[in-house]
Order: sequence, then structure tokens, then C-alpha cells
Amino acid sequence: MWQIYQFPLCPFSRKVRLLLAEKGVPYELIRENPWEHREAFQMLNHAGRTPVLHNPEKQITLADSRAICEYFEETVDKAPMINGTATGRAEIRRLVAMFDENFFAAVTQPLLEERMKKRLVYRQSPDSRVLRDAMRLANDHLYYIDYLIDNRPWLAGSTMSLADLAAAAQISVADYLGGIDWSLHEQAASWYSVFKSRPSFRPLLTERMDVIQPPSHYADVNA
Amino acid sequence: MWQIYQFPLCPFSRKVRLLLAEKGVPYELIRENPWEHREAFQMLNHAGRTPVLHNPEKQITLADSRAICEYFEETVDKAPMINGTATGRAEIRRLVAMFDENFFAAVTQPLLEERMKKRLVYRQSPDSRVLRDAMRLANDHLYYIDYLIDNRPWLAGSTMSLADLAAAAQISVADYLGGIDWSLHEQAASWYSVFKSRPSFRPLLTERMDVIQPPSHYADVNA
Repeated sequence: MWQIYQFPLCPFSRKVRLLLAEKGVPYELIRENPWEHREAFQMLNHAGRTPVLHNPEKQITLADSRAICEYFEETVDKAPMINGTATGRAEIRRLVAMFDENFFAAVTQPLLEERMKKRLVYRQSPDSRVLRDAMRLANDHLYYIDYLIDNRPWLAGSTMSLADLAAAAQISVADYLGGIDWSLHEQAASWYSVFKSRPSFRPLLTERMDVIQPPSHYADVNA
Repeated sequence: MWQIYQFPLCPFSRKVRLLLAEKGVPYELIRENPWEHREAFQMLNHAGRTPVLHNPEKQITLADSRAICEYFEETVDKAPMINGTATGRAEIRRLVAMFDENFFAAVTQPLLEERMKKRLVYRQSPDSRVLRDAMRLANDHLYYIDYLIDNRPWLAGSTMSLADLAAAAQISVADYLGGIDWSLHEQAASWYSVFKSRPSFRPLLTERMDVIQPPSHYADVNA
């Protein structure tokens, strides 16, 4: 069986887990805190990042969440998530990159730093200026989702794709850490609430990251 | 014809240009400084990053360098660069991500900030501590390339792949900005010197970024 080295609030591990669940690929979780720089983990992935997928029977190790997603897209026919014409696939990958890179750098990463690592690792208080900036930039991204959902049923077009999984993965971590204000974003909220009730998403919403608690609306599918 | 919005020291544009040249796809360059946040450019790419590829005849706009590379890999058969088995392709993509993300964040981005943007935009002097850190981390990456080239003719295996193009693109920008010390890296230097003499690479080496000059070895194929 595939083993996923991850921690509960890793957005890239969440994206891979959503993909595997949609495709019906079973996996087991192995807890890995990449900030501990464990030597055995560095050997699995020179980049030192989660997720890493390891299959002991097949003797395969995969690293980098986009490389992992492309691998399962190529090897498992069920539930294609990078589908359509070459330009359609480019649009899916453009949006995946936007959430993996821009949203992560502007929103998820500072929230993880301020609200998770400062609490669990450094025993410091969060910097309220950094939190405010992250929430403002989250808001900008939600406006862009509103715009996309005004024009398309799913983020990259007429069907659910890896773009939706990547966006939902980042947003779910930001939401857990109290970084999302849904009040001004009817379209984004309705798109996300559909996601929250999918069977692939439910296991993520029930997990907790050590002593850090999410806001009450986080796992509520009707919120 | 394809138009590439880019600036001469954008490592992601260089990766795409190397791929297009290897595949024999003609293009023209359009100078874009993404730090100017030009509104018309933001309309082409919401993420505001170079490169963006635009084809006026086909009315196609592509953004995100990895999405762009996958698009040309899917639509142009010549010179396959993400080739082989599913695990082989995952290895290529893992290394592309390592250079696009880890090398860029640790080396190329701080060098661009200190030696390009501070000079051209902010009119400040570079921070020598940041430069030292970037050069030390470049050194760590070159050791990893030495290790790969000890075991394989090309970074991801027996043939040239997008991993080599991604690595050479980042390294060429770092080298232009004086961030690479080749003296301890015989294997990495021999791999890179093969690249420097490829026809796809020559146009990049002759370009200059405004008033910023590269070190004398930069464009020398025998250095």
C-alpha cells in the first residue's frame, strides 16, 4: 500500500490525498514534521518537503506534490483530474500552480508560520500584522474564485479537476487556521461547500493538528 | 507565432525558451518586467509572473512555466523532454520542482533581488550577508548535481530531460549574477559545459540584462 509522509495541515499532502481518494487509491498516513529535518526523511526526499509517497512493495518513492499527482493521473484511469484538450489541461495546471505557489506563499505559508509553527515549535505569539496581510491576500484570491465560478461550474471549466483539489486543499488549511472570511464570497463559499460534503474531503475535516483547534464552521458542511 | 513575455534573467522564461528551441518551435520575445505590475500584463496572467506565452493567431494564452512545458510536451512530438515510464516521468518532474522551487527560493530569487532589483529598481546596495547565504546554498545544490551526474549521464536518467533544462535555466541566471563557484564541482561543471555549447543555449548566453554585466566565464563555453 502507498504510504504518505505528511502532517495534518500540509496543504500539498491534502491535495494528493484528495486526488487518491477520488481515484480510489488506498493509502496509509505516516506523520512527518518536515521542520524537524529528520535525516531518514531527507534521504527519502532531498528537498525535505511533504508529501512523500512511498510504496514498499513496488519499491517506488515519489516526491513533489505535482509530480505525484501527474503520476497517479497517468497510472490510474478512474476520475481523470487533468483532462480535456491541451489548452484545457494547461488551464488546469495554471490554476494548480496559482494555488500551490501564489496562494501558498501569500496565505497558507504565513498562517502556518504564525499560527502553527510559532505555537508548536518556537513558543511565540503570532504577529498580527502578518496575519492581517495573509487574510487580506486570501480575500483577493477568493474574489478571483468568485469570478471563475461566475463563469464556469468548476474552477478550470465544466468538470471538477486538479485545480479544484489544489484550491480546496490550500483553502481548507487557511480556513482551519482562521484565515478565511467567507462573508463576502457567495460563489466561492458555494463551490467550497460542495467540496466539503464530498467523501474524499470528509476525512481531512475530522483530523486535528495537535493542540491547534479550527473555528467552529471549519468542518460544518452547512456553514 | 508564439510571443514570450519575459525579461532576460527570468529563469522560468529561460526554461521555456530552452524547451521551445530543442523542439524547434519559433517564438518572439516581448520584454516584460513583472515587478512593474503592468495592468495589461496582469490581465494576461492573474498571477503576474513571467513567462506568459501568447499566440495571437490561435488565440491561446498560457501561463505558469510548468504548465507551458507540459503543453508543448503534449503538442510537439520532437525532442520529448518528459519521457519514459511513469516513475521516470515522476523523477523528471521531481527534479524540475526542486530547481523551480528550492533552488529558485534559496539561490536565484535572492540573487535577483540583491543584484538586479536593488540596482535597477530600488537603487540600493546588495546585502552581502544575503549574497553569502545564496552562494552557500547554490554550493549545496551543486553537490547534489555532482552526486546525480556521478550516477547518471543526465540529471534524471539516461537522456536529456526537462530536469536538465530547469536546472540549467536556474543555474545560468545564478551564474550571470556571480553566484556560482564552479571550482569544487567537476561533475556539475562538465554537465553544464555540455549545455552551454548546445544551439538552444547560445542565444541566452549572448543576451545582457540592461546595465548588469555577467562575470567573464559566463558565456565562455570552454570555462
